[in-house]
Amino acid sequence: MVGGGRDAFIGAVHRMAAGLDGLIELTCGAFSADPDKSKASGADLFLPADRCYASWPEMLERERTLPDDRRMDFVSIVAPNHLHAPVATAALDAGFPVVCDKPMTLSLSEAQGLARKVESKGLLFALTHNYTGYPLVKEARHRVAAGELGTIRKILVEYPQGWLATAIEDDGQKQADWRTDPARAGASCCMGDIGTHAENLSEYVTGLQITELCADLTTFLPGRRLDDDGSVLLRFDNGARGVLQASQVSIAEENALRIRVYGDRGGLDWSQEEPNTLILKWPDRPREVVRASGPTLSAAATFNTRLPMGHPEGFIEAFANLYRNFALSLDAQRQGVEPQPEWSDFPSVHDGVRGMAFIEAVVDNSAGEAKWTPLR
Amino acid sequence: MVGGGRDAFIGAVHRMAAGLDGLIELTCGAFSADPDKSKASGADLFLPADRCYASWPEMLERERTLPDDRRMDFVSIVAPNHLHAPVATAALDAGFPVVCDKPMTLSLSEAQGLARKVESKGLLFALTHNYTGYPLVKEARHRVAAGELGTIRKILVEYPQGWLATAIEDDGQKQADWRTDPARAGASCCMGDIGTHAENLSEYVTGLQITELCADLTTFLPGRRLDDDGSVLLRFDNGARGVLQASQVSIAEENALRIRVYGDRGGLDWSQEEPNTLILKWPDRPREVVRASGPTLSAAATFNTRLPMGHPEGFIEAFANLYRNFALSLDAQRQGVEPQPEWSDFPSVHDGVRGMAFIEAVVDNSAGEAKWTPLR
Amino acid sequence: MVGGGRDAFIGAVHRMAAGLDGLIELTCGAFSADPDKSKASGADLFLPADRCYASWPEMLERERTLPDDRRMDFVSIVAPNHLHAPVATAALDAGFPVVCDKPMTLSLSEAQGLARKVESKGLLFALTHNYTGYPLVKEARHRVAAGELGTIRKILVEYPQGWLATAIEDDGQKQADWRTDPARAGASCCMGDIGTHAENLSEYVTGLQITELCADLTTFLPGRRLDDDGSVLLRFDNGARGVLQASQVSIAEENALRIRVYGDRGGLDWSQEEPNTLILKWPDRPREVVRASGPTLSAAATFNTRLPMGHPEGFIEAFANLYRNFALSLDAQRQGVEPQPEWSDFPSVHDGVRGMAFIEAVVDNSAGEAKWTPLR
Amino acid sequence: MVGGGRDAFIGAVHRMAAGLDGLIELTCGAFSADPDKSKASGADLFLPADRCYASWPEMLERERTLPDDRRMDFVSIVAPNHLHAPVATAALDAGFPVVCDKPMTLSLSEAQGLARKVESKGLLFALTHNYTGYPLVKEARHRVAAGELGTIRKILVEYPQGWLATAIEDDGQKQADWRTDPARAGASCCMGDIGTHAENLSEYVTGLQITELCADLTTFLPGRRLDDDGSVLLRFDNGARGVLQASQVSIAEENALRIRVYGDRGGLDWSQEEPNTLILKWPDRPREVVRASGPTLSAAATFNTRLPMGHPEGFIEAFANLYRNFALSLDAQRQGVEPQPEWSDFPSVHDGVRGMAFIEAVVDNSAGEAKWTPLR
Repeated sequence: MVGGGRDAFIGAVHRMAAGLDGLIELTCGAFSADPDKSKASGADLFLPADRCYASWPEMLERERTLPDDRRMDFVSIVAPNHLHAPVATAALDAGFPVVCDKPMTLSLSEAQGLARKVESKGLLFALTHNYTGYPLVKEARHRVAAGELGTIRKILVEYPQGWLATAIEDDGQKQADWRTDPARAGASCCMGDIGTHAENLSEYVTGLQITELCADLTTFLPGRRLDDDGSVLLRFDNGARGVLQASQVSIAEENALRIRVYGDRGGLDWSQEEPNTLILKWPDRPREVVRASGPTLSAAATFNTRLPMGHPEGFIEAFANLYRNFALSLDAQRQGVEPQPEWSDFPSVHDGVRGMAFIEAVVDNSAGEAKWTPLR
Repeated sequence: MVGGGRDAFIGAVHRMAAGLDGLIELTCGAFSADPDKSKASGADLFLPADRCYASWPEMLERERTLPDDRRMDFVSIVAPNHLHAPVATAALDAGFPVVCDKPMTLSLSEAQGLARKVESKGLLFALTHNYTGYPLVKEARHRVAAGELGTIRKILVEYPQGWLATAIEDDGQKQADWRTDPARAGASCCMGDIGTHAENLSEYVTGLQITELCADLTTFLPGRRLDDDGSVLLRFDNGARGVLQASQVSIAEENALRIRVYGDRGGLDWSQEEPNTLILKWPDRPREVVRASGPTLSAAATFNTRLPMGHPEGFIEAFANLYRNFALSLDAQRQGVEPQPEWSDFPSVHDGVRGMAFIEAVVDNSAGEAKWTPLR
Repeated sequence: MVGGGRDAFIGAVHRMAAGLDGLIELTCGAFSADPDKSKASGADLFLPADRCYASWPEMLERERTLPDDRRMDFVSIVAPNHLHAPVATAALDAGFPVVCDKPMTLSLSEAQGLARKVESKGLLFALTHNYTGYPLVKEARHRVAAGELGTIRKILVEYPQGWLATAIEDDGQKQADWRTDPARAGASCCMGDIGTHAENLSEYVTGLQITELCADLTTFLPGRRLDDDGSVLLRFDNGARGVLQASQVSIAEENALRIRVYGDRGGLDWSQEEPNTLILKWPDRPREVVRASGPTLSAAATFNTRLPMGHPEGFIEAFANLYRNFALSLDAQRQGVEPQPEWSDFPSVHDGVRGMAFIEAVVDNSAGEAKWTPLR
Repeated sequence: MVGGGRDAFIGAVHRMAAGLDGLIELTCGAFSADPDKSKASGADLFLPADRCYASWPEMLERERTLPDDRRMDFVSIVAPNHLHAPVATAALDAGFPVVCDKPMTLSLSEAQGLARKVESKGLLFALTHNYTGYPLVKEARHRVAAGELGTIRKILVEYPQGWLATAIEDDGQKQADWRTDPARAGASCCMGDIGTHAENLSEYVTGLQITELCADLTTFLPGRRLDDDGSVLLRFDNGARGVLQASQVSIAEENALRIRVYGDRGGLDWSQEEPNTLILKWPDRPREVVRASGPTLSAAATFNTRLPMGHPEGFIEAFANLYRNFALSLDAQRQGVEPQPEWSDFPSVHDGVRGMAFIEAVVDNSAGEAKWTPLR
């Protein structure tokens, strides 16, 4: 693991998620840019001292020389955005598969370079767009793919949060500090941190691709260096229209990612804060409340559920699905066997490229005069 | 009453709403362009034959000559949009106050003419943006005006319906037939019929005005002559941003008007389909579920509620609030007394002018190349 | 109308409900035991002075002598419980059909006497168990009757309110004052005022009858003369089991009547505070959210709905369904025609007898040593 | 671990919960009464062959002889009910602390014996009433204890499930098979399996004790050997009244444990299926929606939460809180330091004794003539 030391947030989530199913064990890490902090963080996690590295280059260097049965199996990158590309590239060069947090890189061109690297090395790469790990998101994708909603016409995806409604970065809040810093976060705060989740979710669920967009980004907090709010009109490759809105200043909102999709035969509605419910809407019969582990679920949803219905699974379990599917794919690759279709269901480096293209198009459109900006 | 004969929808709603509080009684009408149907419709309503007129000009002509204690007190216009301006103008010229359905006219210039007429005559005029009649919409407006939410930053208003998801106008469905006909509905179907409700609601609740907008209107049904879906980016006069989306092809949606407002101190959320609940969101304490007739309501909300909490009031009661406030204002005007502040709380001809300006700006922007179109 | 003068609550509801559909007009009344207040209340309602009576005996005496086209058509009794039986009996004796508020009488024997009177006179009698007027309650009854839920096993009905959580009767609150007075309310406060609504709802929806019960009534407020809370175990005539709990000290609850029914094939769930939604639960497919005016509704539900889906109807509209069905039945009886089946769907004097039997059984059981008390 | 082999349900939950926080590692087990299945199950879990025991006596015998740094630290019992007492007693005799699933034993006398054993040995014992592990259940308890709700008057606790609505035990469903078998489950199915969770939750949240009860147990499925449904009137030691109802034949219900508490100052409402929300109800201000990780939470709730608000935690995380608190307490005991107050917050052997007393009282009352049965 690279990053995720004391005071970090997402590193602990990755560790709980990776370990949940008993398939993955944390073996070593470079948890901080500060060597002492890195080693102390590793000790907190009961790691032996010789596997707590002072830096990530040292980790890659040492681990590659360990014997097969002791060497780490893959690298998990949970550091701020500016480190994703360099660490991932070095890890791939050292022969390690990679799990990387999102957004994938600082820029689209960096993302494209990383995609070429992944392809040339033939190593597995997963991007943690974790919200697609929820079983009912997979169910939603299945329903659309099966044609139950008919031709998709309208897609509404929103991601309101309120945690940046005040300038907490000025008070040293670590998460806010780097996310509002262009050097570490990239060209966008709100669209990079959460807008890409919404974009990825909309394409994952519908199987469509955004072709052009029109955006209005705003920075509400004086002195803040990146956007903290944005709304985007979307057009999709089948003619569907959509709206994506993301905000970190929607005060008192928690983490309210939601997607609604309307076709010409039916509609669906899913909200991350009540993730075990999926609403299906029909013109000729009552709405259906599809529940995790309930009757009539697809294989994709069932495979990614652990408990009987009424036993709520949450954020960690959805995140764990990504790690589990990655681990199963990795094991299959090593053993030279064909993975089950469900095992390959995790976000790829190509999802990362689309995410970076989305961020750049939104930032360009919002700053420019043109009404529509294409998204290649 | 003009319009609202057999097979009409909104006329019956107007009648139930107007009569609910025992202040207004239906006395006469020209219920249809077809004289026979008009008279038959009046008979259905237990009106005497001599007050069931063959046409609205006949009604105005005859009623103006009746003695004070028999003459109708005002005209309620519930016919399709193209009749609003001519009937309203003639009624005002005949000395009758007017209650008129929305959108107010076929065009902005017609609306401006009507506004001048209302001002020159000094007669009362109400536009039935009925959703602002809900007590908790009034509570929402009160909370914003009192500064409880702080400076408003973000406004999300949406109005999804699904009833035009198929081309029911081709099957002779009367409501769909005229609403998709430019000659009777005006320049827009979706934005005229429901988008203006959303626009009006956003300005009513926040007290802000939209200054510019960027729109994407769509007609999903082949052969349909007007838009059936639209999404609009909004900018408000205090710098707030917003999104308005309305749709008549959001399949299986009922009448899901909803508004969310975020300030720098708090947020609010109200949905028409569960109108007796208003959610208030705070960064430093739990969300509050404000309920109609519940504790701590403003005078504006209390005045527009009839029943104790837990006794749901709905669409008719909200509509009735508009009629009741209009009737109380009319009575005060006649008696030469000062109306209570709550009595004047009904949508005016100026709201109608803004609604028509909104429709024209949205249609212009969507058809053009410019990113932003101002709304004067 | 008898009762419902200034300061009363339910009288105004009856008037709005009766008038909503344009079929019933208030013509006269004895609105208070105080002659001056009765007359002033009538004047508030725009009634002519000669139809505002000093007392209900005067009203019956005078009205019976009026010519057919001026005489009132029926009597609506909205006074406290102890007046129900004498006024209803006198009205029936004077030849007037009756609409009477619930609970029907002060005692079971009084109720049985009234039932005999209704039968001997052959006049229509309606008891305002108004909650059965909601369209989705009728839908629930239809679904059970059609066998969709299979054999009913379990019935949960609850009616929590919080308005008597403090001793407001000591502060002169009029509604609380008479409801906690045995001389005017009868043997029970909580079970009489709201428990009977729950009992009636459970039998209306399921078509079953309670055969025995076991109760625990409580008076939480020191000095209060009647119960303010109660829980009852129920056994039904088909072997089903149930729980009925009602409370007026469930602090901060509004008017949260709810019924859940489970059969061996499916279940249902309806709540008065969100009356336009009925949840159906199935073991082999997702839950269905049935909505008022939505697709696949029964004729019974459709007949009792006025607006398209998404336009909420509430308490007044449900109450109005009872009055409308009564008025249609009355008109049919007068014209000697067969009423449509839907017209006869209002609570009868026999429902009132069952309600009084329920109250007495609950009070007896709670005070005694026996575990089960039969309900004949 | 004893039990939890292939095809078991709750064993896997225990393993995920125990491992979630990185404090507990599965080291050995006797996973099945069948030695081969036990060993195969252990191999599935990546355990070394010499720690996969053929039987639990063998496990206890061997493990006690291992050196300190290899020996298991405690025993987790996840086998059917009839094994709880013998395994727990033997484990305690062998010097091992115990985590045991509920209900604690087959009978009250067995439970009392186990309590004496725990006390005499001075070893830690935890009973997995896992629902009290939810952070907002702890918040609810804190609010009551702090007096925010005032004196408690009414407690409603319910636990409807539908999984036994058909006789799946006849089709060999393993969970249903032993739970409906008196020899393995004890005197009750429904009240033992889920009724005790409800009883425990009501006493945990309110800090009150049930003093007497009146019950109606039913077996709806012909041939089933134990109850599958029950409703219980409750009286508490402060005079509060309550209703507990549990059912395994409430068709299509999932796992809908819910508790509502009403005091003379406020009320609360919590549902297991949406566990991250706690509703607080007040007579003089709007309802509050308390959210996990939200503002104004108690230390007890905060300590048992891992993620920021809006990141749903679920069943596994709540279960993990119990294991984590047990592990922290165990570590403190070994190191001879005082545990933090939050560490001791897990259900004890005394909760288990009360649970067994509850089951016996309910079964006795339901079968007998007496209205009330005391619960000592």
